[in-house]
Amino acid sequence: MIDCRSDTVTTPDEHMRETAASADVGDDVYGEDPTVNELERRAAERVGMDAALFVPTGTMGNQIAVRVHTERGQEVLTDRKSHVVKYELGGLAQHAGLQVRMLDTERGVPTPEQVAAGYVDEDLHRPGTGLLTLENTHNARGGLAIDPDAIAAAAEAAHERDVPVHLDGARVFNATTALDVPVTDITDHADSVMFCLSKGLGAPVGSMLAGDADFIERARRTRKLFGGGMRQIGIVAGPGLDALENVSDLAADHDRADRLAAGLADVDGFDVSDPETNIVLADVAGTGLDAESVLERLESAGVLATQFGPTTIRFCTHRDLDDADIEAVIDRVTTAFE
Amino acid sequence: MIDCRSDTVTTPDEHMRETAASADVGDDVYGEDPTVNELERRAAERVGMDAALFVPTGTMGNQIAVRVHTERGQEVLTDRKSHVVKYELGGLAQHAGLQVRMLDTERGVPTPEQVAAGYVDEDLHRPGTGLLTLENTHNARGGLAIDPDAIAAAAEAAHERDVPVHLDGARVFNATTALDVPVTDITDHADSVMFCLSKGLGAPVGSMLAGDADFIERARRTRKLFGGGMRQIGIVAGPGLDALENVSDLAADHDRADRLAAGLADVDGFDVSDPETNIVLADVAGTGLDAESVLERLESAGVLATQFGPTTIRFCTHRDLDDADIEAVIDRVTTAFE
Amino acid sequence: MIDCRSDTVTTPDEHMRETAASADVGDDVYGEDPTVNELERRAAERVGMDAALFVPTGTMGNQIAVRVHTERGQEVLTDRKSHVVKYELGGLAQHAGLQVRMLDTERGVPTPEQVAAGYVDEDLHRPGTGLLTLENTHNARGGLAIDPDAIAAAAEAAHERDVPVHLDGARVFNATTALDVPVTDITDHADSVMFCLSKGLGAPVGSMLAGDADFIERARRTRKLFGGGMRQIGIVAGPGLDALENVSDLAADHDRADRLAAGLADVDGFDVSDPETNIVLADVAGTGLDAESVLERLESAGVLATQFGPTTIRFCTHRDLDDADIEAVIDRVTTAFE
Amino acid sequence: MIDCRSDTVTTPDEHMRETAASADVGDDVYGEDPTVNELERRAAERVGMDAALFVPTGTMGNQIAVRVHTERGQEVLTDRKSHVVKYELGGLAQHAGLQVRMLDTERGVPTPEQVAAGYVDEDLHRPGTGLLTLENTHNARGGLAIDPDAIAAAAEAAHERDVPVHLDGARVFNATTALDVPVTDITDHADSVMFCLSKGLGAPVGSMLAGDADFIERARRTRKLFGGGMRQIGIVAGPGLDALENVSDLAADHDRADRLAAGLADVDGFDVSDPETNIVLADVAGTGLDAESVLERLESAGVLATQFGPTTIRFCTHRDLDDADIEAVIDRVTTAFE
Repeated sequence: MIDCRSDTVTTPDEHMRETAASADVGDDVYGEDPTVNELERRAAERVGMDAALFVPTGTMGNQIAVRVHTERGQEVLTDRKSHVVKYELGGLAQHAGLQVRMLDTERGVPTPEQVAAGYVDEDLHRPGTGLLTLENTHNARGGLAIDPDAIAAAAEAAHERDVPVHLDGARVFNATTALDVPVTDITDHADSVMFCLSKGLGAPVGSMLAGDADFIERARRTRKLFGGGMRQIGIVAGPGLDALENVSDLAADHDRADRLAAGLADVDGFDVSDPETNIVLADVAGTGLDAESVLERLESAGVLATQFGPTTIRFCTHRDLDDADIEAVIDRVTTAFE
Repeated sequence: MIDCRSDTVTTPDEHMRETAASADVGDDVYGEDPTVNELERRAAERVGMDAALFVPTGTMGNQIAVRVHTERGQEVLTDRKSHVVKYELGGLAQHAGLQVRMLDTERGVPTPEQVAAGYVDEDLHRPGTGLLTLENTHNARGGLAIDPDAIAAAAEAAHERDVPVHLDGARVFNATTALDVPVTDITDHADSVMFCLSKGLGAPVGSMLAGDADFIERARRTRKLFGGGMRQIGIVAGPGLDALENVSDLAADHDRADRLAAGLADVDGFDVSDPETNIVLADVAGTGLDAESVLERLESAGVLATQFGPTTIRFCTHRDLDDADIEAVIDRVTTAFE
Repeated sequence: MIDCRSDTVTTPDEHMRETAASADVGDDVYGEDPTVNELERRAAERVGMDAALFVPTGTMGNQIAVRVHTERGQEVLTDRKSHVVKYELGGLAQHAGLQVRMLDTERGVPTPEQVAAGYVDEDLHRPGTGLLTLENTHNARGGLAIDPDAIAAAAEAAHERDVPVHLDGARVFNATTALDVPVTDITDHADSVMFCLSKGLGAPVGSMLAGDADFIERARRTRKLFGGGMRQIGIVAGPGLDALENVSDLAADHDRADRLAAGLADVDGFDVSDPETNIVLADVAGTGLDAESVLERLESAGVLATQFGPTTIRFCTHRDLDDADIEAVIDRVTTAFE
Repeated sequence: MIDCRSDTVTTPDEHMRETAASADVGDDVYGEDPTVNELERRAAERVGMDAALFVPTGTMGNQIAVRVHTERGQEVLTDRKSHVVKYELGGLAQHAGLQVRMLDTERGVPTPEQVAAGYVDEDLHRPGTGLLTLENTHNARGGLAIDPDAIAAAAEAAHERDVPVHLDGARVFNATTALDVPVTDITDHADSVMFCLSKGLGAPVGSMLAGDADFIERARRTRKLFGGGMRQIGIVAGPGLDALENVSDLAADHDRADRLAAGLADVDGFDVSDPETNIVLADVAGTGLDAESVLERLESAGVLATQFGPTTIRFCTHRDLDDADIEAVIDRVTTAFE
């Protein structure tokens, strides 16, 4: 079975396992885990922020950030298909008491005009806009790599209105790889950023939340409220340090996504997007089947993918798939739909 | 000064004041206010529901309904410009922990296709859609009277998916007046309805929330949580009973809105909507001024209206304005912009 | 039937009804109801605060105050039997996300030592103490009139720790009447105070929340969130102005409570508290019956009272009961238990 | 430096590190991590429940359990010094909207009479009691081991009133070790139990939440809401499996606590509790110093402990301290206070 469902399925390699086994650990609730401390220091430096915080998941990182930035009742501006809206169980409302203003963007990032139009001033009837969240790459729109100019323009429109900006950068290194820019070209425009060690970078678990020192101090306390303050988590932060070194491998995932897209485009009834990073979306309406049935047939053929809409399925490339795997996927799908 | 800001500015007439003075009252928290009980009975009957509850404001009525219908984290489908989204301080999130899915509708009511597309199934990542709210007339879209077929179609699309429907009918009798249909043609499609006694119907205070018996029992308790369980409120419910008799006067407000729109259309730089009920929207961009400046000039001329957008202002007709007032408004505005 | 259940059952007298009928009104959401404005001005002056806000119920007044004073997750110090804990549907947690630290006090007011012991500093594990609430008179402890020294001592212990103090003064004028002190002797120690116009003072509906100007501005907005921003509510504020004049009548209610207690003390099996204000608690364990059965027997005899515990019932005197009513209650209860 | 602050400071041993390095892993959000699945199966079996869920921290386990068992606004009965009240940032109110009814118990567990007296029926003013939480061993009361009979009696009093029972068993195996009973003698009385792998049992990270199948299904979803759904967390679950084998080592920690208490009792000004498990509380008032100053002096002498009250400090024994460490602690403290 070849697993293209998500880059979350990547398993730690031998080196990561050794790092886990040999990690110098301490009680991170007391701030005494040297491996975590090192990871937080390096993560902050990497994205050009003052400080960083290790969190068990990207969801927790996003939800903590949102809560720290805002006050109850405020509005969050965000793309209608953003992860914080679609996949975090209504946490914006549940954890932070926020109203979401979903924007219909072209590529996942709102234009400055959309930010301006969506912005709401505080008055007697409305708590006002409290946050803009961006996502890069944009998962639900097919792994689009949003370029720094678009990020900068949206962020500037927010900042002009004293609205802070959080970047859900779960796959931000896929974006920088695709765009060939330093990550700070993107993160410099945000007040906080979350990125995952556990997706394409291959760590088993963990994400980093970065921001200024005061933000991270408040985030640390909110992490405790969420039950995310772990003890000798250096055993996981160690592989996280390794993961930071894996950024340069992402280009190969993207090449494989290109190859996969090209191969799938020849399958009868598949309408395949041009991938920008490691995500390939295929509209399978042309097969006369719905996404669920297509996924079942793929599974029988030894390929796993994910439903992304009534007739849309997602394939993800990642470090546990090599060139041969990609060719095998193309072969199996082609055969299954001959 | 002629006040066209809102039909909420209507003041109780002599008869209402006498009704207030002579109302038979009791402690409504114990369910012993005969005037409230009579009002609740008649309100329920009027909209064809089992039971009704007196609430101090439409906002409280809407927020109670939303909370009773849903579970934390669910999504609410609603027009992007609905009152519950724009003017209730993020209560959907704050009181009920709900995520709003704002829909961009043409006339304030979503099509069945929009309901279907906006609907989300409960799964591991999403609590699912818990409610559809409709609004009729639709305030922020200019007092549009949504016809029963459109309401029925949207509601049916929700009900097919086991999603209940709440109708914000703050001005539902304006809609039925404009459409010349019995109110039950509209309310029959909803699981709960809120309507205001205090806007065009002229009561000083109060709204009614109606639904089935179990819904109203839960709503009564939620009203207590919101601090809306008042004592000898029959003194206000009495005028509310009078207000129910004022429905037939709304037609005159609509005629005056037509006359006002026609008159304002001749003002230089005013682009005036064709009113469907008692609300007239004017885009004043053509004056070269923003809404705020136009409102200031109007106020100097003895006319009050409301800002509804950067260059949009709203005029409302209501029972405290007669034909002469309307002519005076037209004259004053015309003169002010000559 | 003679109704001793609560002073909330008082109905407006003729003068109040006339005041309601003739009140000068406006739209209070716009701040334009002259009667409300006058009532707010006079209420603030009365309790020695900068500003005041009309609210539909004491519950809403308390909940607004609590929310404005605190941040999510903080702790509230309060007597275990306080109204905010017992009768407001968990609003402290639901509306404001607060943890209650219930204190076991002797007379409803904590000692400075209890405040000190209950106080919690903010740290990584705890958001800290955010508010002390006091209640005077203390309803669930039998209408106890807490003297200014006890209030001052508790408040000082809170203020020394930068903890604000809210006074639930639903019946604060009963306390000042019993203690023969100006109300400011009590309210001067609090940062905010809520008092009811609708209990012993006889208004049909309404309570006042007072505090400094910034507090009231924030409270006004929170009132909107709660759905408590009403329109021409001057019709109710008018009787509220009358109610302010009724403070001097409370002494008679207290005398009647004394007479009632003395009379009930002779009833077989009744163990009656010495009333301090207008509330008489009777432990009826000696009758061999539980509270519910005793209440049923009283109702058959033409007397209504309230259950306050498994074998405790509460009688309330109020302005709708005169001396003859009190004698009749004593007679009926005596006869019923002969 | 000898670290007696907490058993949370234990670091994974060589075997655990090897287990981490060699764990068979998968994506646990998809339920495909074999090591996690094995740990969940064995944990459930151990405490005699249908199912279990791996959670990153005990706090998250407790908060998930509380939220799944209850509805907004209900009350939680719990000891005043319980962990859920003292150390979880007001999560009961923040995450679940619950009001806490703190009980003053003798040994951390309420008597059936206290449960009965604290129980509140649902009515118009109160959402009623929704949960009883117990804690065993009881941390803030000095690691008291609550015997099964006391647990059973409290739980029965709750169950008779249809109130579910959650057991915070962070250190439940310390209790069973001290009492020499099977853990099911305790857990059989609860509807859900959380226990930690990361304290005395020595795992670096992780706790288990167990309950019936429906409860765990809902808990799994709530874990996602909290951001606790991790990916290849088998790398941590592996050491967790090892930790389950470490229960038999706890007896040695308890013996060392006895030895430590005996030794500290001879220190001038130390009033030392008789430890029941691995926690030793010392009241240091007799030294004339407050807890903070005593801790500073201890730190200078090479011993770390924790403040537990103004003049109370806590020492914890754990698997990273051997007999020689205990003797060294006694020596150093004795010398420091000679």
